[in-house]
Amino acid sequence: MTLEELLARHELEELIFAYCRHFDLNEPERVAALFTDDAVVDYGPEFPDVVGAAAIEDAVAGGLDRIFAATSHHVSNIQLEFDGPDAATGQTYLYAWHRYRDGSPDGELWGRYEHRFRRTAAGWRISSLRLTAAGSRDFHRSAMHPTGRR
Amino acid sequence: MTLEELLARHELEELIFAYCRHFDLNEPERVAALFTDDAVVDYGPEFPDVVGAAAIEDAVAGGLDRIFAATSHHVSNIQLEFDGPDAATGQTYLYAWHRYRDGSPDGELWGRYEHRFRRTAAGWRISSLRLTAAGSRDFHRSAMHPTGRR
Amino acid sequence: MTLEELLARHELEELIFAYCRHFDLNEPERVAALFTDDAVVDYGPEFPDVVGAAAIEDAVAGGLDRIFAATSHHVSNIQLEFDGPDAATGQTYLYAWHRYRDGSPDGELWGRYEHRFRRTAAGWRISSLRLTAAGSRDFHRSAMHPTGRR
Repeated sequence: MTLEELLARHELEELIFAYCRHFDLNEPERVAALFTDDAVVDYGPEFPDVVGAAAIEDAVAGGLDRIFAATSHHVSNIQLEFDGPDAATGQTYLYAWHRYRDGSPDGELWGRYEHRFRRTAAGWRISSLRLTAAGSRDFHRSAMHPTGRR
Repeated sequence: MTLEELLARHELEELIFAYCRHFDLNEPERVAALFTDDAVVDYGPEFPDVVGAAAIEDAVAGGLDRIFAATSHHVSNIQLEFDGPDAATGQTYLYAWHRYRDGSPDGELWGRYEHRFRRTAAGWRISSLRLTAAGSRDFHRSAMHPTGRR
Repeated sequence: MTLEELLARHELEELIFAYCRHFDLNEPERVAALFTDDAVVDYGPEFPDVVGAAAIEDAVAGGLDRIFAATSHHVSNIQLEFDGPDAATGQTYLYAWHRYRDGSPDGELWGRYEHRFRRTAAGWRISSLRLTAAGSRDFHRSAMHPTGRR
C-alpha cells in the first residue's frame, strides 16, 4: 500500500462520516450530495431501490420529516478494497440509535453498510449503498436484508 | 494531504482515545494532562465552563468519585480539520455507557465531542471540549447542549 | 512515525476487523486463521485459556453453535504500540450485541480486547487475546476480567 492509497482511504472514511453527520443533522440535501448522479440505495427488501441523488434526497428527507425526531449513526470496522485508483468497495459496521416523532420507544440497529465508491471529477462519491442488519431493538422496520451470516 | 498531516491526525486520535481510556480507568490526573493549561471544558448548559487543567482534574475526579461506578466511552466518526500545522478542530461521535454508584439503571448517551486542539512543546493537547447530545437513555442529566440538528 | 508504521497499523486494524466480521458471520475457521499457531485466548476467568489456532476454532465454533443466534462486534478506540517491526500490543474498545438461541433477552457488552500481535511469514497474526469488561447488560456471563479501573 502506498501513501496515495492511505489518502484515498482517508477520503472514503470522511465520506462515510459525512453521510452519518448530515443524516443526523437532518440535512438531506447534503446527504444526497455525497452520492453519484446514478447511485443506487437499497435500504431494505420492503423498499424499491432509490436511484439517483435527487431521489435519494427525497427518500432521506421523507424519513427525516415523518419518522425520526433524532438519530445517531455510529460507524466503525470500516473495511475498504480498491478496484483500481478510482473505484472501491467497503463494508462498515453501523450502530444506529433513533428517536421517533410518534413517541415509540427509541430504536436501535446493529447493521452494516455495503458501499461502492467512485472517484469523480469532484472527488469520491458513493455509487451504491446497501443496508443489512445483524439485529435491532424497537426498530420501526422488521424486514431487513440479512448480513449473510451462516 | 501529506504524510505529516496523516501523522498529526493519528496523534489527535490517540489524544481522544487517551481521554476515554483514562476517564474509564478513573484516572482524572491523566485526563487533565491531555489538556492545555488554559483549556475550556463545557460539559453542558447546567454547568459553568471548567477552565484549566487543574480545574478539569477536579471536575472529572468529582464525577468519578460521586456518580460513576463504571463508564465506557466508545468514540467513532472522528472528523478533524487543521488550521495551520499547530491547531485543529474536531467532531467525534461518542457512545457512552455509565453504571451509577447509587444503583440507578445504567445510563447511555449518544453524543458528540467538539474539540479544539493545539500543538504545544510537549505535543498535541486539547484546548477546548464541548459535549453535545443527540439523545440519551436513563442518563443522570437531562439538560444537554443540542447537536445543532435542524 | 513512518509510512511503514502507518501501514502496519492499518494491517493490524484490518486483523481486528476481520476477527469481528468472521465471528459475526459464524465463520470460526476464518476467525482461527487470524491467530498464530501458539496463540493464547483468555475470554474470562471462568474458562481455561484456549491455546493454538485449532483449539480457538473449536472454542469459537462451540459458542456460535450453542449460544449465539446473531452477534455484532463493534470496535473502536484502537490503541497500538509496536515492540520492534514484527511485534505489537493493542487495546481496543468493544461494544458487542448478542442474540441468543434460547430466546433470552439480547445481551450487550462494553468491553476491551487486549491483543498481542506478531508478524509471521504469512503476515500479521494475533498471538494473544484477553477480553475484559467495563460492564454488560443481560449478558450470558457474569464473571469477566475487570478492565483495571481503580
